[in-house]
Amino acid sequence: MAKAANSPHGDLSTVRIGVVGHGVVGSAFTALVARQRDVIAARTGVLLDVVRIAVSDAGKHPAQVGGADVVTDAMAVATAKDVDLVVEAMGGTTLAGEVIRAALEAGKPVVTANKALLAARSAEFFKIADERGIDLLFEAAVCGGIPLIRPLRESLRGEPIRRVLGIVNGTTNFILTKMTEDGLDYASALRGAQQLGYAEADPTADVEGLDAAAKIAIVANFAFGVHVVADDVSVEGISKLSAGDIAMAHKFGYVIKLLGVAECDVQSGAVSVRVHPALVPLKHPLAAVREAFNAVLVEGEASGSLMFYGRGAGGDPTASSVLGDVIDAAVNLRKGTHASLGTFAKAMFTSVDDTRSEFMLSLEVADKPGVLHAVTGVFARNKVSIRAAEQDGIGNDARLVFLTHDARTADMKACLDEFHRLDVVSKVGGFIRIIGD
Amino acid sequence: MAKAANSPHGDLSTVRIGVVGHGVVGSAFTALVARQRDVIAARTGVLLDVVRIAVSDAGKHPAQVGGADVVTDAMAVATAKDVDLVVEAMGGTTLAGEVIRAALEAGKPVVTANKALLAARSAEFFKIADERGIDLLFEAAVCGGIPLIRPLRESLRGEPIRRVLGIVNGTTNFILTKMTEDGLDYASALRGAQQLGYAEADPTADVEGLDAAAKIAIVANFAFGVHVVADDVSVEGISKLSAGDIAMAHKFGYVIKLLGVAECDVQSGAVSVRVHPALVPLKHPLAAVREAFNAVLVEGEASGSLMFYGRGAGGDPTASSVLGDVIDAAVNLRKGTHASLGTFAKAMFTSVDDTRSEFMLSLEVADKPGVLHAVTGVFARNKVSIRAAEQDGIGNDARLVFLTHDARTADMKACLDEFHRLDVVSKVGGFIRIIGD
Repeated sequence: MAKAANSPHGDLSTVRIGVVGHGVVGSAFTALVARQRDVIAARTGVLLDVVRIAVSDAGKHPAQVGGADVVTDAMAVATAKDVDLVVEAMGGTTLAGEVIRAALEAGKPVVTANKALLAARSAEFFKIADERGIDLLFEAAVCGGIPLIRPLRESLRGEPIRRVLGIVNGTTNFILTKMTEDGLDYASALRGAQQLGYAEADPTADVEGLDAAAKIAIVANFAFGVHVVADDVSVEGISKLSAGDIAMAHKFGYVIKLLGVAECDVQSGAVSVRVHPALVPLKHPLAAVREAFNAVLVEGEASGSLMFYGRGAGGDPTASSVLGDVIDAAVNLRKGTHASLGTFAKAMFTSVDDTRSEFMLSLEVADKPGVLHAVTGVFARNKVSIRAAEQDGIGNDARLVFLTHDARTADMKACLDEFHRLDVVSKVGGFIRIIGD
Repeated sequence: MAKAANSPHGDLSTVRIGVVGHGVVGSAFTALVARQRDVIAARTGVLLDVVRIAVSDAGKHPAQVGGADVVTDAMAVATAKDVDLVVEAMGGTTLAGEVIRAALEAGKPVVTANKALLAARSAEFFKIADERGIDLLFEAAVCGGIPLIRPLRESLRGEPIRRVLGIVNGTTNFILTKMTEDGLDYASALRGAQQLGYAEADPTADVEGLDAAAKIAIVANFAFGVHVVADDVSVEGISKLSAGDIAMAHKFGYVIKLLGVAECDVQSGAVSVRVHPALVPLKHPLAAVREAFNAVLVEGEASGSLMFYGRGAGGDPTASSVLGDVIDAAVNLRKGTHASLGTFAKAMFTSVDDTRSEFMLSLEVADKPGVLHAVTGVFARNKVSIRAAEQDGIGNDARLVFLTHDARTADMKACLDEFHRLDVVSKVGGFIRIIGD
């Protein structure tokens, strides 16, 4: 931190920023700083100055951007003497990890949007930041522009949080919205999302729930004060959902959303963190979250249900979150303080088999006497109680759709196993969990 | 702040809290602290200890609550030597104002949920807090349990915010939900809300928009960095809305919500802060906010639309917000720092007449030739352009409903004046603003 003696801003403290990575987020960030630096200086007394930008390919960038030198050595920017604060916006996990580690070890506050890295190595980075007494902030890593980590970390620090339900991946929410509203099947909706740039050519990380898993893992850390990494998350994506599943759900008053779920058992303190499609009641606030928007519902004992909604991706929204963190870290640096990340206990996990939910399940069966009796016998044997059922004829067969009461996941799996062995059942749909009102 | 030498928590810093007011919020707060103090101590290293509680009528309370002395002298609690931090939960503006002032002047951080007081005297209190270098926090003053002020004040400090739209009063949202979903008229819906405890016997402050005005005034301060008090807010309530207005809105694809609106003009920096009913498109995220829930939509240039949703009132949700602030202030006190409230410029206000919007307007007219021509002539003369119209027969008369394109409020008022003077118009409904998609 240095006083800008000859600056037109007089005695403001200048905080010199090194930006590592200048793609969509990095360039949106430097543009936003350029636009807002005077307003920020007036409101906070701190002048943000981007002095160095590291890029991977110097040929694609000018030698200077808004007064900042553009260089290719990321590690040099992370540790430069004239850089007070580092913004990591390069993505990836290998070099980005080295950059964050080196910057923290050099005593520089770090702001990052790198969810994959944080979902894997948060404990290591938090430890260094706490030891050095500097900020490591990462609001943008979860749901882009939505302030979520800060409210969880600060506003709700004393709140007994029981569950977090999040639509934390815009690509899959866009696909599901198109399937729901336009009646498209999964493949067509995915193609549409790819054409509009909402889905990548290889959509695996989004549609199989891996991106959502990294985000809900980070959220679980702050919701429950325990260490959770992406590998602790049980994951199921949306690629097996059909237009029929969505139509059935609608018939019963639900929409299907891909949810990140983090639950904490009141008695035992055991947590379950998972990603899977779920039926959400039409009047539930998450049901109204359409297209590429994200929203996270936090269920606290005292606070009740809170929802945070907004754009979960994109250069500008993500840059907005990064800037909020940069201002915070810069003001703290000037005051000689930092935001405590808190302490995290070792997590105790509930196995997915032991989690409970209501379920929707569909079966295609022979349309003849005794079939319904055989099918309901399977549920009864496995202690799964039915709260609604519907039968449609399809040619010589019939489709049966069941909604269950609250049941153990292991018991539902046992039902599925039996249905697969039952002669009269020609096709077993997967079960989909139901979120209560 | 004192070390609790003989406490079972060993070397934790204890922060001793004085709670002034022990009604719904105060008692929910002390109960929540009792339940969560060990978790909070483990996560933050600070032990919260409620040592004094001030009540107005000692006869209604035990002499001690959870180890804290219950007394009647509010000012004595606010300035007591063994109180490190003051929670003001008494409500009202006279004594509560003295309590906050005295506590701040005695160098004690203050947490309050008192919106009326803050919406009137924030500048005075902020100044003392900043001079003393202590925290004055008030998340609970706006929308009870919803973290909103902190995200605005911190996460979005660098964000160019253009507009805030908030459903910030649960009573009126409950009434409007019943009118919309059950087809009730205003009087029946109000009675229902009173029976359920959502509305008070004298509902004026809620239904006439005064409560919402205090909240949106506080929000405007942090959204735009300017001083706004409740008296700066132009206010219109819901008591004149009819079941017919709501049905008409529905026909055009809207629901009616009472909104707090804070707008900032990009070019001039002039702000408009107001409370009025508005038509919200059915697919807009605010349309899904039902019953007594609150939600605030923040429209930033970079962040895009963000929404914060939850319970805006009630003992537990409000206590949850108070506790978040108390933890923050306690940790800051221990670190010897405080949260900067920022600086606030003098606001420049746009007059309501100069604000622009789309509008819905209904007229009852004689059902005879030339009427529509006369009516549309009024719009044309006042430069108001129509984008949709609908006509229903009602006996010998007809009801005309118009939706306008974006128009100046003064021009709409001029139309209304002319309609009142037009012979063929038997009844002029008020106009209702429309919120775009």
